[in-house]
Amino acid sequence: MSFLDTLGLALPIVQAPMAGTATPELAAAVSNAGALGSLGLGSSDAAGARAMIDALQGRTNRAFNVNLFAHRRDTKDAAVEAAWLEALAPSFARFGAAPPTSLQPVYRSLAEDDAMMALLVERAPPVVSLHFGLLDAERTAALKGAGCLLFATVTSLDEARAAKRAGIDVLVAQGIEAGGHRGIFDPAAPDDALGTLALTRLLVAKAGLPVIAAGGIMDGHGIRAVLDLGAVAAQLGTAFVACPESNADAAYRAALMSTAAEHTVMTSAISGRPARCLANRFTALGAEIAAPTPGYPMTYDAGKALIAAAKAAGETGYGAQWAGQGAPLARAMPAVELVATLAREMEAA
Amino acid sequence: MSFLDTLGLALPIVQAPMAGTATPELAAAVSNAGALGSLGLGSSDAAGARAMIDALQGRTNRAFNVNLFAHRRDTKDAAVEAAWLEALAPSFARFGAAPPTSLQPVYRSLAEDDAMMALLVERAPPVVSLHFGLLDAERTAALKGAGCLLFATVTSLDEARAAKRAGIDVLVAQGIEAGGHRGIFDPAAPDDALGTLALTRLLVAKAGLPVIAAGGIMDGHGIRAVLDLGAVAAQLGTAFVACPESNADAAYRAALMSTAAEHTVMTSAISGRPARCLANRFTALGAEIAAPTPGYPMTYDAGKALIAAAKAAGETGYGAQWAGQGAPLARAMPAVELVATLAREMEAA
Repeated sequence: MSFLDTLGLALPIVQAPMAGTATPELAAAVSNAGALGSLGLGSSDAAGARAMIDALQGRTNRAFNVNLFAHRRDTKDAAVEAAWLEALAPSFARFGAAPPTSLQPVYRSLAEDDAMMALLVERAPPVVSLHFGLLDAERTAALKGAGCLLFATVTSLDEARAAKRAGIDVLVAQGIEAGGHRGIFDPAAPDDALGTLALTRLLVAKAGLPVIAAGGIMDGHGIRAVLDLGAVAAQLGTAFVACPESNADAAYRAALMSTAAEHTVMTSAISGRPARCLANRFTALGAEIAAPTPGYPMTYDAGKALIAAAKAAGETGYGAQWAGQGAPLARAMPAVELVATLAREMEAA
Repeated sequence: MSFLDTLGLALPIVQAPMAGTATPELAAAVSNAGALGSLGLGSSDAAGARAMIDALQGRTNRAFNVNLFAHRRDTKDAAVEAAWLEALAPSFARFGAAPPTSLQPVYRSLAEDDAMMALLVERAPPVVSLHFGLLDAERTAALKGAGCLLFATVTSLDEARAAKRAGIDVLVAQGIEAGGHRGIFDPAAPDDALGTLALTRLLVAKAGLPVIAAGGIMDGHGIRAVLDLGAVAAQLGTAFVACPESNADAAYRAALMSTAAEHTVMTSAISGRPARCLANRFTALGAEIAAPTPGYPMTYDAGKALIAAAKAAGETGYGAQWAGQGAPLARAMPAVELVATLAREMEAA
């Protein structure tokens, strides 16, 4: 059975999960329009995830995708944290704030979150997608036993091979163009930084699993392009950020629709893992700080605090304004219109 | 008139010029097969360029492309050169050789090579393509007055706008996947490192000139993909390196056809400008040296000397083994067969 038929999709389009930005309203609109809506649950605990799934299922009975982080938590290092917080202190001071005195691992990995695993097995969403890594055999078997189709983000042939060995059903080939967090399993390892075109074609030719292409795809032309490369679908994130159903704040939307969208930066300064962000004051700060980050997700605790302090002082240039390299092609329209537009463009291409 | 009709091409395929690797035999075979063959003349003086053009025109009466470097030569700095040569000295010593005592700018920019300009105006090749930058109004007008169609490599919207202002006819959108030298105008400026998919679509949508897409394209699927993005043609380099008509040496061919092709590195250590190379001993050495390079093309004088010394000692891992991120998909076959294969794949896609 084809990928689209397996999930009952009318269109080979996946809305990227975008934890913090995607909402049940957005995902439901996308799924109802015939594509695959997604929720990013990596930033939620099990109770929050349950509420989001409830909200989504109250709006659609079509297939959807829930995304979880499967990172190996970096080791806490008090000296590194202290040096990092000291480096950020002048920025906090500009906004009349102080940095946190210690950093917490603000997100749990699904690999160590039993309550989230239990929720997923109970609710059995049609798709569970993993970011930052894979799960052990027991957790993988539990999700597959519940009937979930398993996606995993990969950025290289080696990660694709590991995903296949681990029992993943579908690869999300995340090219270097992609906005938000790079899914690389080990951010300390060398990164070949493969572009979407090269990565997608390599994985289609050599990985032995269906491939969803992600990174820099903004319209029906881009979708057709990755289908030509042999992908079964295209995943679009930045294209959906400007939809009114997203959780993006006004500053994020304004930056995305301005010429600021012409420059994005891969930075680890916000969260501790590399992520592509519109070039802004936080990415500039990250480029200035020589100290190593306290790792993921501890760094994000400081990053979120600085973003909040700046915003409270009226400075919106520190946001986690994740965006891919196709950002100048973003369009602000309701998700159902955007999906219909993508479908029309695909037909015309 | 369409791009293909302007040049009398049967296929929307450009063989990348690849100075040092492309040969008149390769370019002629490609042009005779209905695509656009190219010569890289940036590493030649006017006499050498004349001989290559003669050799090519003796083999084909179809359109062809000659590529020239239009770099702004970096300033020579004796202290930087001395530190760089000192850093390379242990590597030379391993092969019983000494580094050069001083570094020469081994390649001239077309912007300052009057003999090359005179040759181009006299011979009026159907296409003159520029890499690393643009020409002044006088030189641009001279080439266009001679009837040459002008291509320029660009890596960003800003470079595309500059190319349009300078009178360029066709953009070669070089994505980060691409092998060999990155065409960025100013290697000291920030590089947004746009992937081929994102860059191609952005330039098609916003640059106002025809776009040839380059970077990571290895087969008919990749060609169809960039045509769907709105490109008028695809430029393939790495795909042609393994053709018997190329000038690649045995070690380069062997590395390209091995699992070594799965990893490429953008390095400035070989030439002084960023260039994508198969991961080998020279790229590893480049990652170890903290000293700044002596700029382009002075660094290449040392790089070529080290490559020659290593090769003379039987060590082939220091070659300028340029390759793009699609390298694992390279195929060794005569150019006429490769072009026919690409055409068949395009039809099937």
